[in-house]
Amino acid sequence: MLRIALAQIDPTVGDLTGNRDKIEKYIAKARARGVALIVFPELALTGYPPEDLLLKGHFIEDNKKALDSIVQRVKGITAVIGFVDGVPGKAIFNAAAVIRDGKTVYVYHKRALPNYSVFDEKRYFTPGAGEKVRILKSGDIPFAVNICEDIWDENGPYKAQARAGAKLILNLSASPFNAGKVGERLKLLRERAVSTGSCIAYVNIVGGQDELVFDGASVILDQRGRILASGKQFEEDLVVHDLDNDPLKRLKRYVPGHKTYSGKEEVYRALILGTRDYVRKNGFKKVVLGLSGGIDSALTAAIAEEALGKENVIGVSMPSGYTSKGTKNDAYELACNLGIKFYEIPIEKLFREYTGMFAKVIGAKRVNIVDQNIQARIRGNILMALSNQYGWLVLTTGNKSEVAVGYCTLYGDMAGGFGIIKDLFKTMVYEVSELVNELAGKDIIPVSIIKRPPTAELKHGQRDTDSLPPYDILDPVLKAYIEDDKSISRIASGKDSRNTARKIINMVDRSEYKRRQGPPGIRITPKAFGKDRRLPITNLYRN
Amino acid sequence: MLRIALAQIDPTVGDLTGNRDKIEKYIAKARARGVALIVFPELALTGYPPEDLLLKGHFIEDNKKALDSIVQRVKGITAVIGFVDGVPGKAIFNAAAVIRDGKTVYVYHKRALPNYSVFDEKRYFTPGAGEKVRILKSGDIPFAVNICEDIWDENGPYKAQARAGAKLILNLSASPFNAGKVGERLKLLRERAVSTGSCIAYVNIVGGQDELVFDGASVILDQRGRILASGKQFEEDLVVHDLDNDPLKRLKRYVPGHKTYSGKEEVYRALILGTRDYVRKNGFKKVVLGLSGGIDSALTAAIAEEALGKENVIGVSMPSGYTSKGTKNDAYELACNLGIKFYEIPIEKLFREYTGMFAKVIGAKRVNIVDQNIQARIRGNILMALSNQYGWLVLTTGNKSEVAVGYCTLYGDMAGGFGIIKDLFKTMVYEVSELVNELAGKDIIPVSIIKRPPTAELKHGQRDTDSLPPYDILDPVLKAYIEDDKSISRIASGKDSRNTARKIINMVDRSEYKRRQGPPGIRITPKAFGKDRRLPITNLYRN
Repeated sequence: MLRIALAQIDPTVGDLTGNRDKIEKYIAKARARGVALIVFPELALTGYPPEDLLLKGHFIEDNKKALDSIVQRVKGITAVIGFVDGVPGKAIFNAAAVIRDGKTVYVYHKRALPNYSVFDEKRYFTPGAGEKVRILKSGDIPFAVNICEDIWDENGPYKAQARAGAKLILNLSASPFNAGKVGERLKLLRERAVSTGSCIAYVNIVGGQDELVFDGASVILDQRGRILASGKQFEEDLVVHDLDNDPLKRLKRYVPGHKTYSGKEEVYRALILGTRDYVRKNGFKKVVLGLSGGIDSALTAAIAEEALGKENVIGVSMPSGYTSKGTKNDAYELACNLGIKFYEIPIEKLFREYTGMFAKVIGAKRVNIVDQNIQARIRGNILMALSNQYGWLVLTTGNKSEVAVGYCTLYGDMAGGFGIIKDLFKTMVYEVSELVNELAGKDIIPVSIIKRPPTAELKHGQRDTDSLPPYDILDPVLKAYIEDDKSISRIASGKDSRNTARKIINMVDRSEYKRRQGPPGIRITPKAFGKDRRLPITNLYRN
Repeated sequence: MLRIALAQIDPTVGDLTGNRDKIEKYIAKARARGVALIVFPELALTGYPPEDLLLKGHFIEDNKKALDSIVQRVKGITAVIGFVDGVPGKAIFNAAAVIRDGKTVYVYHKRALPNYSVFDEKRYFTPGAGEKVRILKSGDIPFAVNICEDIWDENGPYKAQARAGAKLILNLSASPFNAGKVGERLKLLRERAVSTGSCIAYVNIVGGQDELVFDGASVILDQRGRILASGKQFEEDLVVHDLDNDPLKRLKRYVPGHKTYSGKEEVYRALILGTRDYVRKNGFKKVVLGLSGGIDSALTAAIAEEALGKENVIGVSMPSGYTSKGTKNDAYELACNLGIKFYEIPIEKLFREYTGMFAKVIGAKRVNIVDQNIQARIRGNILMALSNQYGWLVLTTGNKSEVAVGYCTLYGDMAGGFGIIKDLFKTMVYEVSELVNELAGKDIIPVSIIKRPPTAELKHGQRDTDSLPPYDILDPVLKAYIEDDKSISRIASGKDSRNTARKIINMVDRSEYKRRQGPPGIRITPKAFGKDRRLPITNLYRN
């Protein structure tokens, strides 16, 4: 019998001292529960991904010192900890140390280095040499260690490790969440368990880091791929499990595993964690956002309230002459429902001051967009003034559909430090909004907000559909173009729908410069507008 | 004898049709001059770097079709052209096609794929297999082909190619400029020529692409590393040279080579090219910028004028109650000297309108920064309104020192599409400004602008040194921290200077979120704030 623990922790990138303390706390907790082997996630000590901190030699040295200080205190337990090994300037490795009785008894170097999507590991790391397989023992169980991509890679080291006798394979991961990922991951791990005939203990990091969310959901599988134990999704957790020398002997002890979320609820939980961690880890307490009475700001406020508490969210209504009574009331009602602080700051006087000036400078032949954008920018200015005064983080409220086609004002509604729903298509914004009400058992987000046809209210009678196709046509084209990299001819057939697709794609490509200056936001899809999508601004290809 | 041509062209990323036409035009020109072998730069057909366009299968196919259409028309000349080869979804290659008489007779695949600094080539490309060496012939001269990093790599294919008999090595490059790079490059190429005993024909791309500038300066070296012919720096060029079967026989024909620039003049030329190409390739004609009467906006305006012509630059002075007569006059005088269009739009009324509102909302206990930032943001709003109305590109005027420590206002003076001097430390801003006057033979930039102690003029009597160390102390610390990745203890010795360094570094790290939303700008140093510096926003490491 082996008592194993998966330490599913939420470290902060660069916080070597804090992360060290957290690791030591978890080790102490596990030891108190009689655990023999505790496993931490990939790069638990530095946080993931440390990006160009890895180019600083002294950062690598400091991370090793932090590990050394842990090593000295490890007694009566085996700990496996993700850290950075190697010699700065020569070769550094994404590594796992196996620590026992005040000594590092083994260091594993990650072999498969992902360099696609959000990953840049080949920018930093040298892959581990693949020749030797090392089998260790804890209790009577022979085990081996590998790291994240190593188990996704078809030719990963898990094969040789199992062949060499490992009955238990530890995989230390930092696997970025996207909707549906947990199922994909479990499917893969099951295949690996079955094909190797080994138990797999998979420990994933949890928490938000800039645009990424890591969802935890660590899991122990037996050699038939059945769940023996699992960690919570979207929370820190310490999963303790007694592993039999031959788990198959004791079929009756299987557990159904912790609940993992799916569909819109999974998205909702990811947004809450991503928001909470971005705010907290960056030293903010409170957030402020503009409440227009529309659905985007309503959902953003609801998530912020859930993540941070109502006392930490400030909503500001900034009506102009184009703001209808309905939306103004809705903004207020939403704030009441959420119990958040609410300001109303009309912008009409400032707007007239600007338009008066524009009339002098530009004249009467002004294009519409000048007077529309200035409203958004006045609002941005006001929110930033509140941020400057009180240290509140400004949340933007743009969704993925808007951000994709550039239906938003740079330095206006795009002004802010974090965009919670930046990777949600408008259609998903509705779904999650309805979920918020469902979960609350009441209409936190007023039904009138959900029912009203989307409008920016920057001129009289404006509707989103004046400038854009309806969202149920727009969103599938955007997904096909952005997430699936499809060409126009594969997105649409027929002349009309091709023309529509061409128009949409043109808008997407021509808005690249706006997105480049937009705030970070939480990645929910397999391809968000972050490190996973790197397109030039200067680019004449339109397909 | 072999008449060879280096086609040092400036393609546009994604413009497959335009690039194809440009390549055909150069081939025709060379053929008319009796050239037997013409060589184009790395990825000449797609532009460099195409980034995530390479993830689109149809982009790869379209680039191959464009190549095919060139192939069919190549008669009576051998052309070597950089393009993307391979099968999308399986493996694609950074490739060079050797084309002759309507046929592609050979395709080379780049072996050394850079994945550091601004480069992400391992994200996209599979390295070429290294086993086989192919020697081709043109005239009587046996030659071989490789691509960019291949010749920088100590174990690059040039060794085997020379051993296999290549007397001439063609290197197709897209080598991003930074100050001093041309000398570094020549030194390397000389070493390669001497060590292999082969002539080297190095053809570099030229032009600006988002943050990168490529400076051309293509060169043909004999087997002793002496320059036989060379291309202009920072301009398109067609270098035609008659290569002797044994160049060493004819020592007298060596040319000194085209002038390459160095020091501040090299920086100046790079800024002009980077500006011109960003504006032109993105379809803009005119640019607008705020003229404060300070040196940053003065230099930005002078470079824009040189790059685009005086009729395409609009300067806007936006004085407030804190603007001194001196700076106001200087702004006007600068515009007169440059001959650019000049507007004066006072912001005092708008400023009072905002502060009146802040007095109501926030009250009298306002922190200084609220009233300072709003001035910068009003100015940003005005410039953006002019941009919206007339389609002018807004230039920002922030320098590297400011951008590094966050001494700038997000959505204020940071509002704009392109930052010409974003990678120039303040000390370099002075140097290049003095050069502008030197080259003009008169004080285009008024001496009073150069002489005045730097001030943001957002409150009475303000000076940069109220908030920052003097620039001659600040800039070296910034360089050591940002470009050289040094730790505090290696940057400064002694308690006081360490405290200063610590303060500066803290400012740099805490401004990461601002830079993330700043505009792109021209890379001049080996490490700018672009793709070459990827630091997390959420990051607690301070060293």
